[in-house]
Amino acid sequence: MTLAEIAKLVGAQESSGAGSLRRVSAAGNAGADAIVFAQDDAALRTAVGSAAGAILAKKSDAAIEDARILWVKDPKYAFAVCARALQQDDGEPLRHATAVVHATAKLGERVRLGAHVVIEAHAELGDDCSIGSCATICRGATLGNRVVVQPGSVLGATGFGYVRNAETGEYLLFPQQGGLVVEDDVEIGANTTIDRGALGETRIGKGTKIDNQVHIAHNCRIGKNVVIAAQVGISGSCTVGDGVVMAGQVGLGDHVTIGPGVILGGASGVFPNKTLEGPGQMFMGVPAEPLKDYLKNVAKVRRLK
Amino acid sequence: MTLAEIAKLVGAQESSGAGSLRRVSAAGNAGADAIVFAQDDAALRTAVGSAAGAILAKKSDAAIEDARILWVKDPKYAFAVCARALQQDDGEPLRHATAVVHATAKLGERVRLGAHVVIEAHAELGDDCSIGSCATICRGATLGNRVVVQPGSVLGATGFGYVRNAETGEYLLFPQQGGLVVEDDVEIGANTTIDRGALGETRIGKGTKIDNQVHIAHNCRIGKNVVIAAQVGISGSCTVGDGVVMAGQVGLGDHVTIGPGVILGGASGVFPNKTLEGPGQMFMGVPAEPLKDYLKNVAKVRRLK
Amino acid sequence: MTLAEIAKLVGAQESSGAGSLRRVSAAGNAGADAIVFAQDDAALRTAVGSAAGAILAKKSDAAIEDARILWVKDPKYAFAVCARALQQDDGEPLRHATAVVHATAKLGERVRLGAHVVIEAHAELGDDCSIGSCATICRGATLGNRVVVQPGSVLGATGFGYVRNAETGEYLLFPQQGGLVVEDDVEIGANTTIDRGALGETRIGKGTKIDNQVHIAHNCRIGKNVVIAAQVGISGSCTVGDGVVMAGQVGLGDHVTIGPGVILGGASGVFPNKTLEGPGQMFMGVPAEPLKDYLKNVAKVRRLK
Repeated sequence: MTLAEIAKLVGAQESSGAGSLRRVSAAGNAGADAIVFAQDDAALRTAVGSAAGAILAKKSDAAIEDARILWVKDPKYAFAVCARALQQDDGEPLRHATAVVHATAKLGERVRLGAHVVIEAHAELGDDCSIGSCATICRGATLGNRVVVQPGSVLGATGFGYVRNAETGEYLLFPQQGGLVVEDDVEIGANTTIDRGALGETRIGKGTKIDNQVHIAHNCRIGKNVVIAAQVGISGSCTVGDGVVMAGQVGLGDHVTIGPGVILGGASGVFPNKTLEGPGQMFMGVPAEPLKDYLKNVAKVRRLK
Repeated sequence: MTLAEIAKLVGAQESSGAGSLRRVSAAGNAGADAIVFAQDDAALRTAVGSAAGAILAKKSDAAIEDARILWVKDPKYAFAVCARALQQDDGEPLRHATAVVHATAKLGERVRLGAHVVIEAHAELGDDCSIGSCATICRGATLGNRVVVQPGSVLGATGFGYVRNAETGEYLLFPQQGGLVVEDDVEIGANTTIDRGALGETRIGKGTKIDNQVHIAHNCRIGKNVVIAAQVGISGSCTVGDGVVMAGQVGLGDHVTIGPGVILGGASGVFPNKTLEGPGQMFMGVPAEPLKDYLKNVAKVRRLK
Repeated sequence: MTLAEIAKLVGAQESSGAGSLRRVSAAGNAGADAIVFAQDDAALRTAVGSAAGAILAKKSDAAIEDARILWVKDPKYAFAVCARALQQDDGEPLRHATAVVHATAKLGERVRLGAHVVIEAHAELGDDCSIGSCATICRGATLGNRVVVQPGSVLGATGFGYVRNAETGEYLLFPQQGGLVVEDDVEIGANTTIDRGALGETRIGKGTKIDNQVHIAHNCRIGKNVVIAAQVGISGSCTVGDGVVMAGQVGLGDHVTIGPGVILGGASGVFPNKTLEGPGQMFMGVPAEPLKDYLKNVAKVRRLK
C-alpha cells in the first residue's frame, strides 16, 4: 500500500510522503516497507530516527515534522487497522486434511480449520471462522461469523452439574443438553473451555475477546465486547454485562451478575449470587470490593500493630 | 416410555396420566413428550402451566393436582434419573477412525473413543468408558468402568518433580514412573490434567467428579464421590477424603490432607503439609479457615479505622 | 549396570557389593535389580531392610553398614541421575504417523513427536526434543535442544492484545507477529500455553521447568533454571530472573519484574508494573509481600476483636 492509501485507511490528513508499505513493526526493526506507531513524544522521536516508511502519531504531538508521519487520533488503534489491512494469506489450504468434520455439521464460507480440529455433529460455523489445531467444536455448538479459536480449546462440552443421591452420597449427571452460541467476532485463546448449557444455553456476545485457559461454565450469558484475560473462571449461570473487563485469574461463583462496564482486577473473586455494578468501576480482592476500599483495607492491615 | 414406566423408574406413586415420554426439558420448551421437574411450589405452578407430559415434583407440595404429576422425594434427582434412562445412542461408531490406540493398550467393552484420541502403551480402560476428542490416556494409566473424559484432558502425564543441582542451579527430572488409577464412575471435564505417580501411584476414587481445567499432581489420593470444580489445583502427595467438595480455583499445597466431607469455598487455599478436617465444615480464604472465622475476619478489617 | 558403574556415575566411593541394576524404585517394591535412595536415617533403615540391589545414602549417615550402600552427597539427586542413565528406549518410532509437520518446519536429530502433534510452518526444533500428543508448536516458534513438551500444550499461539475503538467499544487485535524462543533443556507440562510476542519475542531461558496448565503471555522474558508450578499465570511483558521459583496458581500482572532467585508462594499475586527482588526471599499473598510480613498480617487480623 502507498502512504496515501494508508492515510486514507486510518483517516489521517493527506501526506506528502511516498513509500510502499508492506508490514507493521516495532521501530527497532523497521525498514522502509514498515509502518510504526508512536503513542507519545519519546516514542515519536525514536520512530523518526528509525528507517520506518510510515509513522502513525498522535495529532497533538505536532512539534516534530517528518513527511512519513500520519497524524491520527489513536496511533495504536490505527496501527492495528493497518496490520489487519496488510495481513497476507499464508497460502495454506483452508481445511487441513486431518480436520474431522461431522457429516451433519454446517460450515460457512472461507472457514479455516487447523490440523486435527474436530467439528462434531450438528455444529454450525459462520463465514470466515478460524479454528486452531486440536480444538473441538462439540455437538450442536453454534459459532457466528469471524469467530477465531486458538489451538486446543473446547467449545460446547458437557457442563459440570450433578445431583447427589442423599442416601449413597453418589453423584448423577444432571442433563447437559443445552446449546452454546458464540456470536460474531468473538475471539478465543488456546486451551480455553466453554460448556454448553444444561437445559438452556450458554451465550458469548458479539465482539467478546477471551484469552487462554479461561473456563466458562454452563448457562452463562456473557455480553458484547467483554474482555476476559487468561485463567479466569466463570461458574454456572453467571451474567456478565457488555463491555466488562476481567483481568487474569478472576473467579466468579455461580449465579453472579456483573453489570455493564465493570472492571475486575487480577485474581479478584465474587461470591455466588452476588451482583457488582458501576460502569468503569474497578473491583479488587476476594470478596471483590471497590478498588478504593480494597487499597484502604490492605493499608489498614499493614498499619496494625 | 409411558408415564407409568417413568413412575416406576423414579419410585413415584402410580399415576393415572397417559403420555409417551421421550426427553427431559425445561418447562419453557416442554412438549407432550417431555418430562420437567419442579423443586418448589412456584416451579410446580409453571410446570403445570406448561405442555409437559410429565412433571416430577416434591411430595410435600401436594396442594396442586394434575394427572401428569409424579410425586417424588427429590424431583431434581429423579429428573436426572429419567434423563439417563431416556438417553439415546447417537449412532456414531464407538471408536472414531482417527483415534490412536497402542497395540499394547487394553480396552473393555463398548468403549467410546472420540476423534484424535490417543491411548498410549499399556493403558487399560474398563467397560463403557467414553473418551472425548484429542484427550490422551498416557502410558500405563488404568481407568475403571464407566469413566468419562471430556475433550483435551491428559491423564497420566509425567509429574512435575525435579532435583536441583546445588552447584549449577540446574534441575534434573526426578523419576516419574508411577501409575495413575482412575476408579469406576469417575467423570472428568475438558482440558484437565492428572499426572502419574513419581514412584508410587496417583489414584482417583470411585464416583468422583472433576470439572474442566483441574490439575491434580503426582502421588495424590483423591477419595470417593469427591466433587472438584473447575480450575482447582492440587499439588503433589495430597490426600483428599471421601465426599469432599472443592469449589472453583481452590489450591492445595503439597502434602495437604483434607478430611472426609470437608467443603472448600471458591479460590480458598491450603498451605503445604496442613490438615483440614470436619465433615460438612466449610472453609474459605487463603490460608483457608472455617467459614465463620473467615467472614468475621473480613468484617473486622472493614470495620477498622 | 553394575554397582561399580553406578558408583562411578554418582561419584560415590567404590563399593564391594555386586549386583546388576536395571531400574530405580521406592524401597517398598524394590528387587535386587533396583536402586533406592534414602535422604535420612529412617529411610536408610527401611532401604537396608528392602531387597534393593543398591542404596544411595547421605555420606553423613555412616552408622549403618551394608555392601549395597553408595555414600553420596545428595542421594535424591544421585537417584535421578541413575534414573536418567537407566532410561530405556520404549521402542516406539520417533515420529508418530499421525504427527503433522509443515513442509517448512525444521526438526533436529532424534526429535520425538507423539500422536496428533502439530508442527506449524517455519517452526524449528533442536535435537532430542520430545513433543507429546496433541501438542501444537505454532508458526515460527523456535525450540532449542532437549526441549520436552507434555501432551496438549500450545507454544507460540497468538497473544492476547487488543486496542479498543473508543467510539464503538469494539476491540481490534493488536498485531501478534513476534516470535517465541524456548531455549535448551526447557521442560513444559501438559495443557500449558505460551504465546508468541506481539512485535518482539517471548523467551523461555535455558533449563527452565514449567508445570501443567501454566499460562505465559506475549513478550515475557523468563530466565534460566526457573521453576513454574501448575496453573501459574504470567501476564504480558513480564521479566522473571534466573532461578526464580513460583508455586502453584501464582499470578503476575503485566510488566512485572521478579528479580533472580525470588520465591513466590502458592497463589500469591503481584500487581502490574511492580518489582519484587531479593535472592532467596519468599513472598506470599495478594498483593505479594515478604513472607514474614504476610504471616504477621494474617496473625494481626486474627487477633483483632
